[in-house]
Amino acid sequence: MANQGNDIRITLIGAGTIGLSFATFHLSHLSSPSQLTILDTRPDLEEYVRSTLPRFLPDAPISHINLSSSLPDAVRNASIIQESGPENLSFKKSVWGEVEKYAPKDALLWSSTSGIPASQQAADMEDKTRLLVVHPYNPPHIMPLLELVPSSQTSAGVLTRTQEFWRARGRVPILLKKEMTGFVANRLAFALLRESIHLVNEGVVSVEELDRIVETSMGPRWTIAGPFKSYHAGGGVGGLEGFFRNIGGTVQECWDDAGKLNVGEGWEESIFQQAKDQYGVVDLEERDRITKRVLDVVKEEKNRE
Amino acid sequence: MANQGNDIRITLIGAGTIGLSFATFHLSHLSSPSQLTILDTRPDLEEYVRSTLPRFLPDAPISHINLSSSLPDAVRNASIIQESGPENLSFKKSVWGEVEKYAPKDALLWSSTSGIPASQQAADMEDKTRLLVVHPYNPPHIMPLLELVPSSQTSAGVLTRTQEFWRARGRVPILLKKEMTGFVANRLAFALLRESIHLVNEGVVSVEELDRIVETSMGPRWTIAGPFKSYHAGGGVGGLEGFFRNIGGTVQECWDDAGKLNVGEGWEESIFQQAKDQYGVVDLEERDRITKRVLDVVKEEKNRE
Repeated sequence: MANQGNDIRITLIGAGTIGLSFATFHLSHLSSPSQLTILDTRPDLEEYVRSTLPRFLPDAPISHINLSSSLPDAVRNASIIQESGPENLSFKKSVWGEVEKYAPKDALLWSSTSGIPASQQAADMEDKTRLLVVHPYNPPHIMPLLELVPSSQTSAGVLTRTQEFWRARGRVPILLKKEMTGFVANRLAFALLRESIHLVNEGVVSVEELDRIVETSMGPRWTIAGPFKSYHAGGGVGGLEGFFRNIGGTVQECWDDAGKLNVGEGWEESIFQQAKDQYGVVDLEERDRITKRVLDVVKEEKNRE
Repeated sequence: MANQGNDIRITLIGAGTIGLSFATFHLSHLSSPSQLTILDTRPDLEEYVRSTLPRFLPDAPISHINLSSSLPDAVRNASIIQESGPENLSFKKSVWGEVEKYAPKDALLWSSTSGIPASQQAADMEDKTRLLVVHPYNPPHIMPLLELVPSSQTSAGVLTRTQEFWRARGRVPILLKKEMTGFVANRLAFALLRESIHLVNEGVVSVEELDRIVETSMGPRWTIAGPFKSYHAGGGVGGLEGFFRNIGGTVQECWDDAGKLNVGEGWEESIFQQAKDQYGVVDLEERDRITKRVLDVVKEEKNRE
């Protein structure tokens, strides 16, 4: 299949948190760490990667990864170029302009952006067919989801090769058929966050109580079956239709008086403070370790069928 | 501690899905199945429990559970009376009126309702201090969450005894400080569902793709850390405040054009059909088995700390 085997060469542009998390993922799937190049213009790149990458991957074979500060060198032999740089349109446009000059003609070009459309990023490119957004759910070395958001010019072949790459590595690439601000995952999470802010602001529960409610109900439920599947099951033999027949009235009532607070409307101070008092600095290692075990359990169980 | 030991006697009113799921939970925590009574007026109660309870609990000791169709008999010695009957105010008012006549004065009275306030249910009772809503997340023999929703008359002592009962059994009772339609968990889930309907209706993703997005991102994330904790972590050293400083603009943009479809506005047909075609009849046994393993893993990992 495409993109597999010893000839694949991946170049990551940007050695921030997302870039190094992707590096971790790719290192677990490449035959040799020499197939990976990390491009970043920070002067202390090697020292920085040496001190930071082991947080994601304790035994990272750092001396075998190519570290580069020269874009032409870094992309010249790449089959995949994955950009996780600053969220800044002019940066991205200039990167892709350079990449186009030096990279092989059939290299796949992926941006991790959470908000700058591929069409805008590719505006100055001659060949706009190879670029698309491959938006991870952080951190990508743990979370299976990739939202694929092409421009209208991205070619079908590029989409297929991209999907195959991720599927072959046990990931879940979902192709969005339309571009929306925030894509899908963030839009959904932000909708729930808005209602969360409303309920805490109304004094129904605290920040910590709201989190515990989600952790002990929807979190685990939606890990096994997303919202539609869950409510389809909840409707019994009538399915999702039966669910709405039974309690559509209550659903509508909740929608009617749902939270409509906006950013900057005065709810912030108390909620930010509660989060700070309650959580301090979150232990990401613990979070990621447990998340990985949960995902492994689900995979194992679903593969039993 | 209160409510523990051999002298506790639980009477369940209503042998529907929620009632039998609670029966399953209680049977795993009582010293003897003879401490459990199930009250239901259906004429085939024994046959029905014999055929249905094993779906939740394969080796259910059915012959040792008290099955009753007489409310006075069923509640006479109960220390806890938990109602999971029809969602119908007059039914509930009449049940509590009868319970009050025959039950011990210090029995705890819990309703599993998802929508009828304790204050309304207790309207005709002489002693309104003992009744509160204990709303499970279905199915309660698997899911840890219980939303406790008292009326203004529920006594502090009753709340404490109720919280202690569930905590001692590894459950997560969360006391809501205000009553809202749908309580907290359903309100949050319905907010995300509304945006889900919007995105499918806009043709961005299918029902099945949306579910897979949630299953591979927010589901596992929120199983470990609820939305506030997650975004507090996402803001780095700046916490939740830093998160909003960084991407509050995008959050607000997503809120500004969030889905506002209502029940009955024409999106139903295609979405119901997709759910039916995709999922048919959902395998609840599989769902519950995987959910239980996920919850066990999280518990084990969190207890390591």
